[in-house]
Formats: sequence, C-alpha cells, structure tokens
Amino acid sequence: MRLAIDVMGGDQGPRAIVEGSARAVIERPDLTLTLFGPYQQIHAEIMRLPRPLAAAMSRLVASDAPDVVSSEATASWALRRGRSTSMARMLQSLARGEASAGVSAGNTGALVALARRELGMLYGISRPAISTAIPARGGRRCYLLDLGANVDSPAHRLFDFAMMGSAMAQCIDGVKRPRVALLNVGSEATKGSANVREADRLLRGCVGDLGFAYHGFAEGGDIFQGELDVVVCDGFVGNVTLKASEGLTRMLVERVQMGFESSLSGRLASLLAKPVLKRLKQELDPVRYNGASLLGLKGIVVKSHGSTRADGFYYAIQRALQEVEHNLPERIGERLLRP
Amino acid sequence: MRLAIDVMGGDQGPRAIVEGSARAVIERPDLTLTLFGPYQQIHAEIMRLPRPLAAAMSRLVASDAPDVVSSEATASWALRRGRSTSMARMLQSLARGEASAGVSAGNTGALVALARRELGMLYGISRPAISTAIPARGGRRCYLLDLGANVDSPAHRLFDFAMMGSAMAQCIDGVKRPRVALLNVGSEATKGSANVREADRLLRGCVGDLGFAYHGFAEGGDIFQGELDVVVCDGFVGNVTLKASEGLTRMLVERVQMGFESSLSGRLASLLAKPVLKRLKQELDPVRYNGASLLGLKGIVVKSHGSTRADGFYYAIQRALQEVEHNLPERIGERLLRP
Repeated sequence: MRLAIDVMGGDQGPRAIVEGSARAVIERPDLTLTLFGPYQQIHAEIMRLPRPLAAAMSRLVASDAPDVVSSEATASWALRRGRSTSMARMLQSLARGEASAGVSAGNTGALVALARRELGMLYGISRPAISTAIPARGGRRCYLLDLGANVDSPAHRLFDFAMMGSAMAQCIDGVKRPRVALLNVGSEATKGSANVREADRLLRGCVGDLGFAYHGFAEGGDIFQGELDVVVCDGFVGNVTLKASEGLTRMLVERVQMGFESSLSGRLASLLAKPVLKRLKQELDPVRYNGASLLGLKGIVVKSHGSTRADGFYYAIQRALQEVEHNLPERIGERLLRP
Repeated sequence: MRLAIDVMGGDQGPRAIVEGSARAVIERPDLTLTLFGPYQQIHAEIMRLPRPLAAAMSRLVASDAPDVVSSEATASWALRRGRSTSMARMLQSLARGEASAGVSAGNTGALVALARRELGMLYGISRPAISTAIPARGGRRCYLLDLGANVDSPAHRLFDFAMMGSAMAQCIDGVKRPRVALLNVGSEATKGSANVREADRLLRGCVGDLGFAYHGFAEGGDIFQGELDVVVCDGFVGNVTLKASEGLTRMLVERVQMGFESSLSGRLASLLAKPVLKRLKQELDPVRYNGASLLGLKGIVVKSHGSTRADGFYYAIQRALQEVEHNLPERIGERLLRP
C-alpha cells in the first residue's frame, strides 16, 4: 500500500505532517508514504523524528517538489502556475497510479481545482464536494457536504451531493439505507432558497430509485440529532456550520472546565472529573474528525485540516486508507450510473 | 409602559406565553401587556395561572383576534388573508401607537412580512433583518444577523446588516466602536461568494465613515471567540448556524452529563458537579438568548423562539423592554442617515 502525501501547506509547517506520516507507517507495516515537498525540508524533518518514530524512516520516501501553494493562492493561480508545487506533484503521482490515495493539509480551493484537473471527475459530476463526519447524538455520525468546494450550488449539484454522501455512508460505515436530508431554514416545503427547493423537487421526483431514504428538509440542529446519516448543503453554508461547530465546542469545553475551577466543590469535582473531561474532549475534538474527503473524483484525495497537528494528519491518513479499502470512487461511480 | 403580545403561534401553545407575560408584569409594576388571540383561550390561560402569578391578571389585557398564522403559512398568505390573525392585530395595535413594542413566537416569515407592511421600514432599508446575541468567550456576546428574514442577500443588504448590527451593539450594550465582520469561508479576500466579496468592497470603500471598526472576513468559529461584536451573513447561513449551535450545545451538555455518569468516580463527580453543570446549562441555554430582534422597522418587534417555554418568552419581553428604553429604531435611523 502506497499513499502520496503533500508535506507543505499546513499551518504548523511540515513537521506535524511528517510526524503524523511516521506514526501511520509505524502502525502499518505494509504502508509506504511518498512525501512531496522541498527535499531538504523533508529530509531535515525525517532526521528530527523522535526516536520511537525514526524506525519508520525507510518507508517515508521523499520526492522533491520545489514550490508551495500558499494559503492565499487562488485556484486559478494553482492551475496556471502551480505545476511544480508539492500539491500538484502529489496529485500527478496519484494520477499516474503510483499511489492509491493522496492527502494534503494545504489550500482547499487549490486542492479542489488541481485534483479535478489531474484526476478527472466521475461520469456526470462536474465538481468535487468535500465531506466529513460530524459527531452526533448516541455515538452516531452524520456526513455533512459540501464543506466549501462549491459556493452557490445549483439544485442539480445538491442532488449529486446527496448521491455521493449516501454512497459514502453505505460504503465506509456500512449503513444499508442512509437517511439523507437537505439543509434548510425550516422543515416546511415553502421555505428556503430557490436552489434548495428545486433540489427537494428533484429528489422527490425519483425517490423510489435513490437507494437511500430521502427525509426532506432538515434544520441546523438536526445534524447533531443522530437521526440522519447525510446532510446536504451548499459549500458556503457547510463550511460556516463546520467551523462554527468547532469554535463552539472549544468554547463549551473551556466553560465546563472553568465552571469546575470557579468553586471549591468545583475544584474537588475537577480532580475527580479530569479523566471524564479529557475523554470527552478527545471524543469531540475536531482533529479526530479531521480528514475530509474530496468526493466525485476518479481517485481518493483527503483534505486534512489546515491547522492540524501530527495526530490530526495521522487520522486523515487513516481516512484515506479506509477509502482505499472500500474502493470509494468506484462505489460512488456505480451509484451515479444507476440513478 | 405597554407592550403588545401575540399569544398564538408558539409550539407550546398560549399557556407558556401567557405565563411568561405574567412573570414580566409581576416583576415590573408599570408594565401592562395587551394579549392578542382568541379571547376565550386567553381568558382560560389567565384563569389557570399559578397563584403567585395570578396577581398580574389586572395588567394582562386580552384583545380578541379570531385567527392564527399557522407554522406552515407562507408570508404571502399572511399578507393576503392574515388581517384578523393575532399576529397582524398585535402589529396593527403597535402601528397605531397603542404599544411601545410587540412580541411574537409565531411564524417568522409571516411576522417579517406583516411587520414590514404594518410598521414600515426605516429610510433606505428594504427588508427587516433578524438578530440575536450569541454567547462568546470571556462572557462576551456577538450579534449575528441576518437569522432568516432574507435568503439570498445581495451585497447592499449585507452592508445594511452591518450598519444595523453595529447600531444595536452600541445602543443596547454600550459598545463604543463595535467590531464588525462579514462571515465567509476564509479570511482571504479572494474567497467566498460574489455577494460577500462585493459587500466587503462596499464596506472597505467607506471605512472611515462607518462609526464601527470593520474587521473584514470572519470564519464560522470567530463568532464564539469574543473578539467581534457583530457578525453579518445571509439569512440562510445565519439561520443554519444558529440552529446548529443550539443543537450542538444540547448534545455537548448531554455528553458531559453522560460522561460523569458512566464511571464510578464519575458518579461521585456528578454529585459534586451538579451545581456547576446546572449553572453552565442555564448560561448557555438558547432560551436565555431567545429574543431575536427584527431590525430596520419603524417600530420594535421581538421574535421569540417557536419552541419557547414561559421563561424564554419572559426573556423576549425583557429584550423588547431594553429596546424601548434605548429607543433602538430611532438610533438605527440616525446611523443610516449619516453613513
């Protein structure tokens, strides 16, 4: 098993990414990772690996790419001038079949545009969507898409998101008949934007042939209720919702801790409660749910959070491995051919 | 002081609203509330008030309105056929100057449309916006708008939201120079939808004359950071973000409680932690932040959450009283005249 890794573009620099990659190969003896980026930087980071991870060195293969896609770069810059960046080189290697999947923590807009050009799209899909699993009630999870690959999604694209999200829930999580809903400002059919209402009409029009259970409109709170497997929305809405959820979780965990520390009995409780709070934080930490999948491509690309640390990047690699194992693009393609 | 109350339209029926109204008049001896709805229902609920609240009876004045705006009704139905509904009667009374402000827990779309017709808009504003204060880090709060009065907001409307939100933070919270940002999918100027980028251009074009500090783009997580007083977005995005935040808060508080109960030391901690968790829940309960203001009208209208209970409706009345005290519409009007 070989994956292609873009070492540049994360906010924490290449160190976190090389360390996360080392953890992944240590854990899985048949895994080799090709690391794309400036050779010297990669080499320096590999040399700096803590001793327990250094055993992985032989299965971390550096591949020189002199340039980097900055976080300010536009998609059109990446397409015109980004051919020798670590991101583009990673995707080119994937397109040549040298790796089974690619992972990057870099600029999302550039990654979507370059992946689309280098790998091509599945039949009938015009643009990739980004999706990740959101933790929901009762230990369940809900795939939210799109998370920002498309702002202003027309109805037919929302329809595609529903197909791709449901294929993902079936394929990765083994949900037989995923429950899918469209995100809207109310559950009544008269509400919402024209695009959302038209997508609802399209989905209702072929509800017998969908292969998933279409639940109509959902509201923002329904994402966390545990009663839906896939929630579909435009990328602007999904991106804001995901980031707001991350920010709110951080604030709430902080407040719980402060609440315990502000009183004497609280201080005592804090001592006893520490293991509980630590577990909760891990469970809800966005880093764990960090790998987001680019769907609709003829290949597997996982986007890791820009501000990821080593463990977040490690989880993104795990996500990519899962998708390889389940052959996700092929499964999505099958679903699209028999609508 | 007299306010007009729409007793119908909340998911919990008129009981919660009459009870919340009774609490408000008990607390404030100079307050009288005119309750609009089917006379018999109002009367029955007043008669059913628990003894401590029954003393308020004389300052709860029923005003008969035979019809109700259902939650499924469209705005155009309300405009064409809703003249004798409790919601419309409440607004008509407000327009005649019989009350200083109005409160409703009913259908948002209908409320926005009827309020616009009955009260009229401030000079230069075409449609109302809905806003509420979101709890943020460090005990701070952030006004988010629009929360659903407008889906698909053009740039000039986002500009108006910024003006109105900043007037609200100045007027109600005494913030001298509110920090205002536009919600987007990234902080770089090249990102986001055409409307958001154009609104950014408009705001930057007159940044010296705004009377607030324009901070450019914000991402979803920034709402809760405590570093912004106002975050502006389209109503679709704001509505989904608000409801997702409410749902996530419920899930997180539940998980904290379950975490404590799942282990023996946790059970012990739970005993000690109960007061802390209760306080936290109250502090973050969306019911507390429940009154949402309709801005841009020539009058004060507060929308209470549809699923509100008595205490939520009570807080919505408090919000309306604050806005009366600070003469909010006039203050917003002044801001709009000298851009």
